[in-house]
Amino acid sequence: MKVLVVGATGTIGRAVVDALSPRHEVLAAGHSQGSLRVDLEDKTSIARLFEATGRVDAVVCAAGTARFRPFSSLSDDDFAFSLANKLMGQVNLVRVGAGAVADRGSFTLSSGVLSHSPMPGSAAISLVNAGLEGFARAAALELPRGIRINVVSPGWVTETLQLLKMDPSTGTPAAVVARAYVQSLEGRQTGTVLDARG
Amino acid sequence: MKVLVVGATGTIGRAVVDALSPRHEVLAAGHSQGSLRVDLEDKTSIARLFEATGRVDAVVCAAGTARFRPFSSLSDDDFAFSLANKLMGQVNLVRVGAGAVADRGSFTLSSGVLSHSPMPGSAAISLVNAGLEGFARAAALELPRGIRINVVSPGWVTETLQLLKMDPSTGTPAAVVARAYVQSLEGRQTGTVLDARG
Repeated sequence: MKVLVVGATGTIGRAVVDALSPRHEVLAAGHSQGSLRVDLEDKTSIARLFEATGRVDAVVCAAGTARFRPFSSLSDDDFAFSLANKLMGQVNLVRVGAGAVADRGSFTLSSGVLSHSPMPGSAAISLVNAGLEGFARAAALELPRGIRINVVSPGWVTETLQLLKMDPSTGTPAAVVARAYVQSLEGRQTGTVLDARG
Repeated sequence: MKVLVVGATGTIGRAVVDALSPRHEVLAAGHSQGSLRVDLEDKTSIARLFEATGRVDAVVCAAGTARFRPFSSLSDDDFAFSLANKLMGQVNLVRVGAGAVADRGSFTLSSGVLSHSPMPGSAAISLVNAGLEGFARAAALELPRGIRINVVSPGWVTETLQLLKMDPSTGTPAAVVARAYVQSLEGRQTGTVLDARG
């Protein structure tokens, strides 16, 4: 399969590329690195990405950011940024990209466990993650030509915890998280949320 | 208790007012009717509403709209409207109103079963409903002074189905839906989604 990976230079994205490369053709897209660039907040940029890739069999998105901040400090801009980037960025990847995906192809997006297991500071992120999951459940009913859509919900990634000098023992290694993306890509399920905590 | 009901003139809002009136003081707010008016899309309008009410013990929101339309027809504006109205409108009701709610008071917002039981046409609504539920789960951890927050998830309402000349037998009467709002208001739970299908 020809697989577009958006966010290919991030911790999870790199692990997804490593997992897919042995048996699929990977097109790696990043925000500010590599030959394929995309700004998820900009629909025109997303359209240019798919003009550059041409027809693909699958799209994996391991990109998108939302703001983590105490509830009383979350600003209008924090909500607007989170909605425009991680939520509508991935929604628009599907809306714009559906026409470029082959029959019986797939989209695999990224939410996160804060959707259902919140913590103080996660109000905007929990909103975005849960909203994305609701979107995917619904869009799965209407995508044309047998195109599937799933969401992978990663928890804390071991490598990220190490980077933040936090206890990595509660995390999931990126290589294990990547398996959920491969499962969505190579499986037959649609409209599901895959827990990537291994 | 002094209870502000936003969306008090809608099918569900009227039933909530009827259920609360015998034992609580109800302040009824509407978009375009009554003495208390609010435009959920406008944070300034929300701030003016709470200036008008002063301190309240609870806020119930049975208002907020999102667009139902085939996935391929949902426009940028349909998503933007749905996010600004039913989703961020209710989020901002909490952000702006938290200071006006008494200690151990509560917010009760409205999502809908399309969050987890989507149907063709519901991509924007499912996103909004699920996002609101994720927000409430998280905000419950951080609201100050013991203030609680829950979301009521109504299914089809019998009276609405009758109005649309659809089979009302699969619906839930508004008076039964209203019980979930009362339960959130008078109970002790927080961060929960109450299924209002009776």
